[in-house]
Amino acid sequence: MKLNRDMNILIVGLGLLGGSYAMSLTRQGYHVKAITRSHASVEYAIDEGLVEYATNEVEAQLVGEADIVVFALYPHVFKEWVAEYQKYFKSGAVITDVTGVKSCIVYDIQSMLRDDVEFIAAHPMAGREKSGVQNCDDSIFKGANYVVVLTDKNTQGAIELCKSIGEVLGFARISELSPEEHDKIIAFVSQLTHCIAIALMTCQTTPHLEEYTGDSFRDLTRIARLNDDMWSELFLLNKDALISEMELFEGELDKLKTLLIEGDREGLREMMRYSTARRAVFDKPKD
Amino acid sequence: MKLNRDMNILIVGLGLLGGSYAMSLTRQGYHVKAITRSHASVEYAIDEGLVEYATNEVEAQLVGEADIVVFALYPHVFKEWVAEYQKYFKSGAVITDVTGVKSCIVYDIQSMLRDDVEFIAAHPMAGREKSGVQNCDDSIFKGANYVVVLTDKNTQGAIELCKSIGEVLGFARISELSPEEHDKIIAFVSQLTHCIAIALMTCQTTPHLEEYTGDSFRDLTRIARLNDDMWSELFLLNKDALISEMELFEGELDKLKTLLIEGDREGLREMMRYSTARRAVFDKPKD
Repeated sequence: MKLNRDMNILIVGLGLLGGSYAMSLTRQGYHVKAITRSHASVEYAIDEGLVEYATNEVEAQLVGEADIVVFALYPHVFKEWVAEYQKYFKSGAVITDVTGVKSCIVYDIQSMLRDDVEFIAAHPMAGREKSGVQNCDDSIFKGANYVVVLTDKNTQGAIELCKSIGEVLGFARISELSPEEHDKIIAFVSQLTHCIAIALMTCQTTPHLEEYTGDSFRDLTRIARLNDDMWSELFLLNKDALISEMELFEGELDKLKTLLIEGDREGLREMMRYSTARRAVFDKPKD
Repeated sequence: MKLNRDMNILIVGLGLLGGSYAMSLTRQGYHVKAITRSHASVEYAIDEGLVEYATNEVEAQLVGEADIVVFALYPHVFKEWVAEYQKYFKSGAVITDVTGVKSCIVYDIQSMLRDDVEFIAAHPMAGREKSGVQNCDDSIFKGANYVVVLTDKNTQGAIELCKSIGEVLGFARISELSPEEHDKIIAFVSQLTHCIAIALMTCQTTPHLEEYTGDSFRDLTRIARLNDDMWSELFLLNKDALISEMELFEGELDKLKTLLIEGDREGLREMMRYSTARRAVFDKPKD
């Protein structure tokens, strides 16, 4: 079962990601409706034609008509929503999400969920340093990675459907991970990098530093602009994995420092050659 | 005295930066000639029209005609070059450079240099992750920063000339620092960021990690591709400053780790809000 234009898609939470999903799917002729908390987001989504319909209320009929529900909410809000409103889901509906952490979410949702509805988690690895539906942009998916996060409760039909959403949105690579694998990798590639950007930005208060920076400093700190409400929740929900990746990274930085202290030029060059060779693997497919 | 089209400009070392200087100045109608070691670079520069003339030899007449000599060499090669060939400089010539470290270069060159020639150091804060004249590109200067690095041996005339080179190349901001200030700032904004990118790239060997990365990881590791020969020399020449910036950064990362361990959400949010606010200062002027 792949995504098709007869299906009713409901997006819950029109932020940057929910809005970008809506923009992409609506532009491609899919039927997209939305529920979101803020009046301004409802108005914006309707004015910009991102959705066929949007509301602030959790309308039983609207939820009950949806074949697919995409949750783009903060983790704790997502859980509360499902607990309270799952009674409205259509029998046979598939629900998915965009949440940045998985172990703390997926099992809880799957165990509380009605037997006739399936939850299959996904993580679209795309974003911007600005939040909110007003900054949505469906081009962020181009060349990006999309991860389907599976447990043994998931069925082949739902896996295929969830992957086809990633394909329709334009992701370049679609892969599968368990919740535990996902959280360990995310701690490294996403959460650790945000920690580094924050620390770079807060550790120096030299005035006029911006007059002396090049692109390297700008690149490493682009993501130092973040939504503190969301990211603090994501960090704490994945705390153990994140702390262990921070320690791994600090250990490697210490290796580099030791080579410097010892004046070991060949050792430095070897690390640099390895990092240069390995970095080539990480270019976006379109690069 | 500003840069003008009657002056003879000689570039020594056609790599990425030397080549990009040549490209920009020649396109704007300045007279640019070059000396560089590799035959391939000489041929490339002539074929692409980057210079009026280029050679592998240090020709006495060519050096003797130059009003301005721009050195774009590795630090130790730069010193050796001046020691050996300064006898050819025209009386009254101004020499400048693009070297990424200053304290270990500027005083040595100024003290060995003939009295009738002035060395004024500059650091164009621009680059790419690919080296060599074949990758030169004069658009790298747009929106970038250019730092003139002064000692009390420098004259107003040479300072004005050196700044005007930065203006002609199209830099957005031109400022002045002492060699010591420069090296401390560079250790932070450039060398530390390269160390971080290297450590991020070498600390994990998880296979297929590239399938699960987003732009944040790509951005933080773009500069993990580097010329190991040049960067190991730059790191070691600025070793003390770099080590102290690494320690400052590690201390800040530890603060973040402690907040995580303690589950101090408000502390995390405060750091994030500060980093978000401070990052806005670092956008390129054109952004």
